[in-house]
Amino acid sequence: MSAGAALDDQPAAVGVDVGGTKLHGLALSAGGRVIAETRAATPVTARPPTTPGAAIADAVVAIVDGLGLAVDGTDVPIGVGVPGMLDRHGVLVCSPNLPGAVGADFPSLLAERLSTGSFVVENDANCAALAEHTLGAARGLDDVVVITLGTGIGGGLVVGGRPMLGAQGFAGEVGHMVVDPSGPLCPCGRRGCWERYASGAGLARLAREAAIGGQLPEVVALAGGDPEAVRGEHVSSAALGGDLDALHVMRELGWWVAFGLANLAAVLDPQRFVIGGGLAAGAGEYLLEPTRVAFDELVEGGTSRPRIDIVAAELGERAGAVGAALVAQSNPSAT
Amino acid sequence: MSAGAALDDQPAAVGVDVGGTKLHGLALSAGGRVIAETRAATPVTARPPTTPGAAIADAVVAIVDGLGLAVDGTDVPIGVGVPGMLDRHGVLVCSPNLPGAVGADFPSLLAERLSTGSFVVENDANCAALAEHTLGAARGLDDVVVITLGTGIGGGLVVGGRPMLGAQGFAGEVGHMVVDPSGPLCPCGRRGCWERYASGAGLARLAREAAIGGQLPEVVALAGGDPEAVRGEHVSSAALGGDLDALHVMRELGWWVAFGLANLAAVLDPQRFVIGGGLAAGAGEYLLEPTRVAFDELVEGGTSRPRIDIVAAELGERAGAVGAALVAQSNPSAT
Repeated sequence: MSAGAALDDQPAAVGVDVGGTKLHGLALSAGGRVIAETRAATPVTARPPTTPGAAIADAVVAIVDGLGLAVDGTDVPIGVGVPGMLDRHGVLVCSPNLPGAVGADFPSLLAERLSTGSFVVENDANCAALAEHTLGAARGLDDVVVITLGTGIGGGLVVGGRPMLGAQGFAGEVGHMVVDPSGPLCPCGRRGCWERYASGAGLARLAREAAIGGQLPEVVALAGGDPEAVRGEHVSSAALGGDLDALHVMRELGWWVAFGLANLAAVLDPQRFVIGGGLAAGAGEYLLEPTRVAFDELVEGGTSRPRIDIVAAELGERAGAVGAALVAQSNPSAT
Repeated sequence: MSAGAALDDQPAAVGVDVGGTKLHGLALSAGGRVIAETRAATPVTARPPTTPGAAIADAVVAIVDGLGLAVDGTDVPIGVGVPGMLDRHGVLVCSPNLPGAVGADFPSLLAERLSTGSFVVENDANCAALAEHTLGAARGLDDVVVITLGTGIGGGLVVGGRPMLGAQGFAGEVGHMVVDPSGPLCPCGRRGCWERYASGAGLARLAREAAIGGQLPEVVALAGGDPEAVRGEHVSSAALGGDLDALHVMRELGWWVAFGLANLAAVLDPQRFVIGGGLAAGAGEYLLEPTRVAFDELVEGGTSRPRIDIVAAELGERAGAVGAALVAQSNPSAT
């Protein structure tokens, strides 16, 4: 091992990605290398919780400790990515996928628990977009939309080579574009949000509806024989195993992904869509290829406009946590 | 009249706004004053036309001549705003509201007909946004969306104080966000585009459906007694006259306008929406007030996020033509 590589074993920043179902933490070296990594389940909180976000903040501290690098108390900056709308003070205003933490004042909660030099709280999809733009599939591009398909759908926008955060920092809440006003209820309180169709939760819904109707035998077998227990990953697994029924559901999912991308193309006209998140990482081309086919049919201007790339995120499930670390690194004076 | 005012009577640029139903031309002084103005019906062309866009180009020249200022052959720049997607060379790639002109090479068509020093072709909604941002209701704001409600719906985006045109210049095609995949057919070839609901054409459809069902007697009377002949302006007129049925239809229209604005707020998070175009100019607060009420219900985060203003365009129906003139002025070397 060279001296340079040894130097790159030191943590330059820690990133923690708080998801609807799991937390993911990692330490990044100055050279962008992941030098420690850990995961935990997102705590389920009573509703309404006594202190919104307290359980999440405890879990973030446990993740930081779990990295085994003793960064708390040092000047290693910590970035935390959170799903939902954060106001300029880091207070979570709205979060359909983290309902127990709405109203959480994360900067205060974390300051009570961590004595690190600095930490930053940022929207998780903005983190993922920064990571892909700095180190991944959006590198060097001026106009890119990074979509994170997980429990819900997140979006991070790059416009003119810079993150586009919006007037209040709420831009890129693309999962809550309504694509059918009479569609299924969304935890955000409305009906027919894009993430009811094109997320992990959407895939599970599509698959359960088919399974309860007697279809998808292999997927139901993976779910232990109970159609009601079918989850998105059962469909991904069956599709990767070549099950034709599961592949059909993945094509349907791809159509819904493409449907939202076509709407985003109408508004934003990016060069490229980068698709990340756990769902995309698990399904890979089984999802992306039908998405591309449907997108060409759905986008305004069709094939007579220059093609917009649809590619997989290069950082995969790590994008959110890597981006949170990058945000922390680029905001060393934040508190 | 002072010498300064006399000087401000000279045309600094000409703008022509090509709409789906009419053309609107004006000459702008260096001080931003409209010193001549004229209108004409948009020519109906055979499909497919021999030379796409030739009839439109002839009509643009007639509008320029009709201003009576003999600007052709001078160095007064001419800007032309066109609905639809223009590629970087000014060729119309896609235009649901100007179908006879798809494929038109406007720079070449106009160069054959005009010997002016320079002219520029730009998307009409981008023109309107520039006008409102320079002289109207978006003045001084960094993050604004200007929506033009006419035959269709156009959108012009300002991000970080600058026009956001997208990677290919196609950004802001907001009328073709699909808001219901099983909705009515759109001239763009898909179903359920926002402009099927929230434009002048959408208002006419809402009203005709009600009229054919035996409702809206006053509106039908304004249309000469024929429910099939009901147009959007009949509803606006009846609403302005206090007809409760017509006001109900305007509230329904306002809901659909708000629905699209809520989707745009999720993606873009602007400070303000500026609503212009002939439909908004005609209906005024009868449309905007129900739009604001519905928007507060529909936007993600509701009233717990900072309010996004929804205001009328200050330049009214002139925004497109004024903006086309401003584009021409700011691109003196364009051909």
